[in-house]
Amino acid sequence: MVAMWIMDMMLKVTWVMTTVGFAVLLSDYLRLQRQQCTETTGVQNTGKQAAERPPKLPDGDYVQHGSSVWCWGHNNTDRMCKFSNLCFSPQHQQFVFFHGEQTVTHGIHNRFHPALVDMTSIPDHNTQYFQYVDLPISALQDFKKVKIYQGTSLIFNRFNPDNLMHVFHDDLLPIYFTLRQITASDVDPFNLNSRLVIMEGWRPGEFVDLYQMLSTEDLVFKQELGNLGELVCFSNAYVGLSKATTWYQYGFKVPQGPKDNIAVTARDIRQFTDFVCTRLGIEETGVSESKYIVLFSRRLNRLIVNEVDLTIALASEFNMRVVTLSMESHTVPQQIAIIRKASMVVGMHGSFLTLAMFLPPGAVVVELFPYAVNPEHYVPYRTLANLPGMRLTYAAWRNIEPQNTITHPDNPWDLGGIAHLNPAEQDAILRSTEVPRHLCCRNPEWLFRIYQDTVVDIPSFLKTVRKAVTDAEANKQGNGGTSSSDDDYKKIYPGPPVDFSCQSVQSSDGLVGLQLSWQPPWNLPYLDAKDTKYEVWIQEQGEVSYMPWILPFTSHVFSEGIEAEHDYNVWVRCIVNDTVVGPFADAVQCST
Amino acid sequence: MVAMWIMDMMLKVTWVMTTVGFAVLLSDYLRLQRQQCTETTGVQNTGKQAAERPPKLPDGDYVQHGSSVWCWGHNNTDRMCKFSNLCFSPQHQQFVFFHGEQTVTHGIHNRFHPALVDMTSIPDHNTQYFQYVDLPISALQDFKKVKIYQGTSLIFNRFNPDNLMHVFHDDLLPIYFTLRQITASDVDPFNLNSRLVIMEGWRPGEFVDLYQMLSTEDLVFKQELGNLGELVCFSNAYVGLSKATTWYQYGFKVPQGPKDNIAVTARDIRQFTDFVCTRLGIEETGVSESKYIVLFSRRLNRLIVNEVDLTIALASEFNMRVVTLSMESHTVPQQIAIIRKASMVVGMHGSFLTLAMFLPPGAVVVELFPYAVNPEHYVPYRTLANLPGMRLTYAAWRNIEPQNTITHPDNPWDLGGIAHLNPAEQDAILRSTEVPRHLCCRNPEWLFRIYQDTVVDIPSFLKTVRKAVTDAEANKQGNGGTSSSDDDYKKIYPGPPVDFSCQSVQSSDGLVGLQLSWQPPWNLPYLDAKDTKYEVWIQEQGEVSYMPWILPFTSHVFSEGIEAEHDYNVWVRCIVNDTVVGPFADAVQCST
Repeated sequence: MVAMWIMDMMLKVTWVMTTVGFAVLLSDYLRLQRQQCTETTGVQNTGKQAAERPPKLPDGDYVQHGSSVWCWGHNNTDRMCKFSNLCFSPQHQQFVFFHGEQTVTHGIHNRFHPALVDMTSIPDHNTQYFQYVDLPISALQDFKKVKIYQGTSLIFNRFNPDNLMHVFHDDLLPIYFTLRQITASDVDPFNLNSRLVIMEGWRPGEFVDLYQMLSTEDLVFKQELGNLGELVCFSNAYVGLSKATTWYQYGFKVPQGPKDNIAVTARDIRQFTDFVCTRLGIEETGVSESKYIVLFSRRLNRLIVNEVDLTIALASEFNMRVVTLSMESHTVPQQIAIIRKASMVVGMHGSFLTLAMFLPPGAVVVELFPYAVNPEHYVPYRTLANLPGMRLTYAAWRNIEPQNTITHPDNPWDLGGIAHLNPAEQDAILRSTEVPRHLCCRNPEWLFRIYQDTVVDIPSFLKTVRKAVTDAEANKQGNGGTSSSDDDYKKIYPGPPVDFSCQSVQSSDGLVGLQLSWQPPWNLPYLDAKDTKYEVWIQEQGEVSYMPWILPFTSHVFSEGIEAEHDYNVWVRCIVNDTVVGPFADAVQCST
Repeated sequence: MVAMWIMDMMLKVTWVMTTVGFAVLLSDYLRLQRQQCTETTGVQNTGKQAAERPPKLPDGDYVQHGSSVWCWGHNNTDRMCKFSNLCFSPQHQQFVFFHGEQTVTHGIHNRFHPALVDMTSIPDHNTQYFQYVDLPISALQDFKKVKIYQGTSLIFNRFNPDNLMHVFHDDLLPIYFTLRQITASDVDPFNLNSRLVIMEGWRPGEFVDLYQMLSTEDLVFKQELGNLGELVCFSNAYVGLSKATTWYQYGFKVPQGPKDNIAVTARDIRQFTDFVCTRLGIEETGVSESKYIVLFSRRLNRLIVNEVDLTIALASEFNMRVVTLSMESHTVPQQIAIIRKASMVVGMHGSFLTLAMFLPPGAVVVELFPYAVNPEHYVPYRTLANLPGMRLTYAAWRNIEPQNTITHPDNPWDLGGIAHLNPAEQDAILRSTEVPRHLCCRNPEWLFRIYQDTVVDIPSFLKTVRKAVTDAEANKQGNGGTSSSDDDYKKIYPGPPVDFSCQSVQSSDGLVGLQLSWQPPWNLPYLDAKDTKYEVWIQEQGEVSYMPWILPFTSHVFSEGIEAEHDYNVWVRCIVNDTVVGPFADAVQCST
């Protein structure tokens, strides 16, 4: 997580140079400038010159109807918006909404408080807000050259396109699931014809091909738009990425950790990884064919100093081949193809471990942490491995021996150097034995520790791995031969009970009762119901309280609390295996 | 509002016959049976026999991927759901969701509490809930004949398809705006290719052609589905109608009245009425060409006894032709074509007045109310006429003379008869001079009074109409020559101010100040800005409170509360015409 976009956590400010603030502000400013690319560079990098495009500039007739917007959700964080004729002014670097005769504005309340919608999957990050500027349709005539992108466009910001964890977690998975929502139609569950419009303004970056995988249309970068006209309009545009598949929060407001209310499951992840493998031409693999261990090797920093020893130890311990991967020696598709058939991946904490999502069920993930870094505090990959139904076994190993760590106090600050700190601060960091929990992204103690190199203690490491492998074997036995995990199963609920009858009965001793009976939900035979119960609520009409009952059968005479010549409402629902609770059937009215 | 679906307000109950409850319950039951139609009748009524359809039954390959659902919103009332492969089992009369490998379930939390989504535009009506039953994909093989509807389907219930107010307000407008959301795409703001699937189970009804207007595909009725197979699947289905265009609540929970937070404006209404007129082939009309008065004549009940006198009085008072329309003599399209060019409509309270939405701007609506009915309590048409930007002038006339009313105490109860009540209740109703506010839909005093016939007192009626015409003239003057109403205008906000600079300054007496300047929002020239101000917030960094300022210019030296060698955050926004408040620009940081 360390290579995170360093500017992220800052309030987005326009630093204006005044006498005092100049020095430090300018350095930030120049850094940002370096990271961004000029318009020309951006276009060249993607190999798409505006001049190469066919000069197909429709006359804007459709735009003249005006723009429209439909948003769902209550605020920028949970919104998703669809636009007709959303335009962008390269000159003003702002989106433009034309109010015309056919304009619809739906669900845009509080669009300035603080923004209409987030442009990334990161909730409410104040550098990632989407806004547009209003214009009357009469203003359209003042834009001389209008480029129109027809078809469906998805407009978003990449959050940190240089880091593989961010690329997959923040962008690729959310884009995939957003496009599935948008494009699900007749023939395919997923349609590749939507255009991706990438607006954060960074260079395409080394992972740009991964984005291109999601569309057969050329990627469009903000930097190109200025070459296309005074106005660029998107006929059918969606803004905002689904947040349904993210599982991690990076510590902008509270220290990093799993996000609240994780909704993503193995089913979602594997739909995505299957899609990626299909698109990359990586063949399907059986679950049980895994035959080797992947060791991920960082070449530039955060090194495993005794990597060769560790490789030999792993190979001989488990009698398996160890395949060493690195960002320098393999492309991401090559890495995916190899990981897809691995039985284990081992690597230092780092974004490579995101690729564990491509492991087959039953595999093992072993993450190594440098000295003074607590594995409990940095769990993006543990959380991934433990998502419901993933059936991966995760283990963390941590260097606890100070003599086995190699520090780099003289590095640049963003690679963990601490030379810029005052001596007391440096000393405190050097004497600390564990980095306290902290916010993203510039904590110097965290950076100092995570950029250490490590001599891995082989015996303790092997002990960790051995236990993980044993756990994985045990888990495989536990899951037996069924392919559906508990979690998937739980999504199938019994329907409402049906065919009710009720009758007033009187026992020989004069007691009045209600004889109720019903039939099981019709989908019950399709559920793996080891145990079926019914919950019955009986309420006297006009009363607020009710009597609840749990029964293992579908017919019963109720007499407790039942009186002669009264009217009752009765509700019944089905409960399977004690935990899967179906809906109540419509109320039945019964009279004694 | 009286012809409202009489069963609406009831808790949906399955009445089971027990000894005591039998009589009254059976009558309800039989009534419901009468109102519904059998499957066979339904299919014949729409002229679409299953046998006539081409036997094009795809093999269900796509269904085998499983169903998917994406919902937006937090509960049944504000949700809209999109499905892939949503199926319906005619045998069980329930929708079916197949859990397969490609299944996505997004946003369906609390789907049983009380339901996933409403099937009408009426919020949270408990007879209008949408639910589905879960099945594993393996169950698909047990359905022998699967009919697949490809393309886009919108699945909904009509709320009360026999009443014109309900047809337009609850169904047609919401369907139109839902389809605009769904189908807005490249070429057209509206696409007629979506299939309407009508699931409430009633007969097609006399207004069925109005629904057909919204689609070039044949309407599909629930009653037909049983003839198509053991399972009917919709490849791309939307469930739920937009509630954005409704303006009235019918009194199910509180007495009837305008709904809270009305969002619909004249722009929305006129987009719809223009669409309808285009579809009906009714030619465009200029605003000022209106030359006649429309009198709506009820022929069966709630009569204007002296209709001829009233017609003559209107014609001679305003020197205009009076065109008399009735449901018996004109089709709805004929009525619309005539109303579209009218300068006034006059009619007894009743669903016909919904058609006032087709009046040209500047026209007058005069609604008559029988004795003892307070016009303030029944305002669906007044609310419509007064929607922002409609520019209709509404007036109500009320019979206040008991001798001018003709009661019908011996009518059936649902046409206002009171013979079934006990004498004391009858007497109370007869002596009452105003129906108190009440809930929908069976209040006998309301029904008794609204089904009275009325001898309209011509002088007092003409006085009401004269004042309305004078008001309408005054409104026309007020709106001048501009075509945009205030409301439309207010939706165009100034953008954020731009090009900030700030500088620390020191006055000759040693006081420190911040000189701030900025440029106006770039869209300001396109706004009709008679007055432009800027709101400036200055906050010392680290503090919670801030100093707000309002300025009429774009540059100022702030010194109050400004101290030397401090850092400040500054936010600026633009306010136009004192009421239209734009967004704050990003914070600027300034140091002294």
